Amino acid sequence: MLLAQAPDGVPTITRGDDLAARLTPVLAAITWPDGTTGVAEGDVVVIASKVVAKAEGRLVAARDAAERDRVIEGETVRVVATRERPDGSVLRIVENRQGLVMAAAGVDSSDVPAGTALLLPEDPDASARRLRRGLHARLGVRPGVLITDTAGRPWRRGVVDMAIGAAGVRVMADHRGRHDAYGRELQVTVVNLADEIAAAAELVKGKAVGRPVAVVRGMAHAVTVDDGEGAATLIRPPVEDMFRTGVGVD
Amino acid sequence: MLLAQAPDGVPTITRGDDLAARLTPVLAAITWPDGTTGVAEGDVVVIASKVVAKAEGRLVAARDAAERDRVIEGETVRVVATRERPDGSVLRIVENRQGLVMAAAGVDSSDVPAGTALLLPEDPDASARRLRRGLHARLGVRPGVLITDTAGRPWRRGVVDMAIGAAGVRVMADHRGRHDAYGRELQVTVVNLADEIAAAAELVKGKAVGRPVAVVRGMAHAVTVDDGEGAATLIRPPVEDMFRTGVGVD
Repeated sequence: MLLAQAPDGVPTITRGDDLAARLTPVLAAITWPDGTTGVAEGDVVVIASKVVAKAEGRLVAARDAAERDRVIEGETVRVVATRERPDGSVLRIVENRQGLVMAAAGVDSSDVPAGTALLLPEDPDASARRLRRGLHARLGVRPGVLITDTAGRPWRRGVVDMAIGAAGVRVMADHRGRHDAYGRELQVTVVNLADEIAAAAELVKGKAVGRPVAVVRGMAHAVTVDDGEGAATLIRPPVEDMFRTGVGVD
Repeated sequence: MLLAQAPDGVPTITRGDDLAARLTPVLAAITWPDGTTGVAEGDVVVIASKVVAKAEGRLVAARDAAERDRVIEGETVRVVATRERPDGSVLRIVENRQGLVMAAAGVDSSDVPAGTALLLPEDPDASARRLRRGLHARLGVRPGVLITDTAGRPWRRGVVDMAIGAAGVRVMADHRGRHDAYGRELQVTVVNLADEIAAAAELVKGKAVGRPVAVVRGMAHAVTVDDGEGAATLIRPPVEDMFRTGVGVD
């Protein structure tokens, strides 16, 4: 059984906040169908990158569209695709400093003070490890931690959440070597567990409802004692990227 | 609270099986943390396309690699990208007859009898509506139904599940017009709920474990009386596809 819930009452987070300290009372008060409360071993704490970025002081000035464009350019490593919008502005899908391919380089202008924009955490895996350490110190258990962001995909409408930072979560489930009911090796061999957990968590977190943190229970088989290799490993390396230099070229 | 579980004991499905009739005993026996059993109004039944395709007799002969290639070509509408593998074979990402962009056009050679391949359901939304009608007739409730398949994504490692068929599920959550805490309109406006539910369901279904069906509870706000527009609407139309004719061209 998988369970996921996103508690109300997460306080507004600002620069310099100790994220683990701020989240602990809210997480400790969660109640589960079996009557237990709080976060247990094997749970995964899923948090929106926006909240982590705010705690890390990643808010920058972006007083107008031109300044916002410069902020986005500063986060851009490589332009992947561009398209002119009906209003003449240009939508750019880019690879950003974190290696993620996203619109606007992952720079967030929603739910931030006017005249500012929010950069992603500098190193989301490091942020996840830090939050995990802080939660462990306060809660006495060592949950997995995922930091999530929202992105579109080339051939699917609507956005979904994905994992950009991870600590203590086995981010991929490797079924290579396993066989089907007919004794043949499985074709679909590596599942991106972290992105699926991020998507499940988004269903309870939702957008713009003041619930940026979820706890997912039932994935204990994917929670590890070690922090593990993180979510950066979920980014497809250039040699596997079929869309790096053009369609059909690699 | 979101809950998801995938029952054991789903029988092997073969051509001509009445899927709803075969699944009903398994679904009716599910137990929930509150002590209730079965499927309730507002639940979503999520089923792997493989099972639906088998019931619909979509198994075809594919005795060797060449015949399998011809089957894939027959399902291909447009080649999106190709890459030569280290062993000299060619990986093709294509748009298939259902409009989905996938490796091998969605033709499945895993967990099928030797010498065969499995095509996707001809019209997954119609399959979802049919299954929903059958479940309603037998269970007395009208759950949402999603048919899922597994796909890779250009810049992310590992595969995730997505929704290729839907009935009675509001597949996208449209937040346009909603405002953030600072009074500005939300940037991220349309969430692909169906793909996120498919991903959550995959976490409990897993691969190669004989649990191709999951029930997701807690998404009643996304379950509708009408069958709705289905999952075909989740496919990005050509005018929005930034990777249709080449990087940076549209």
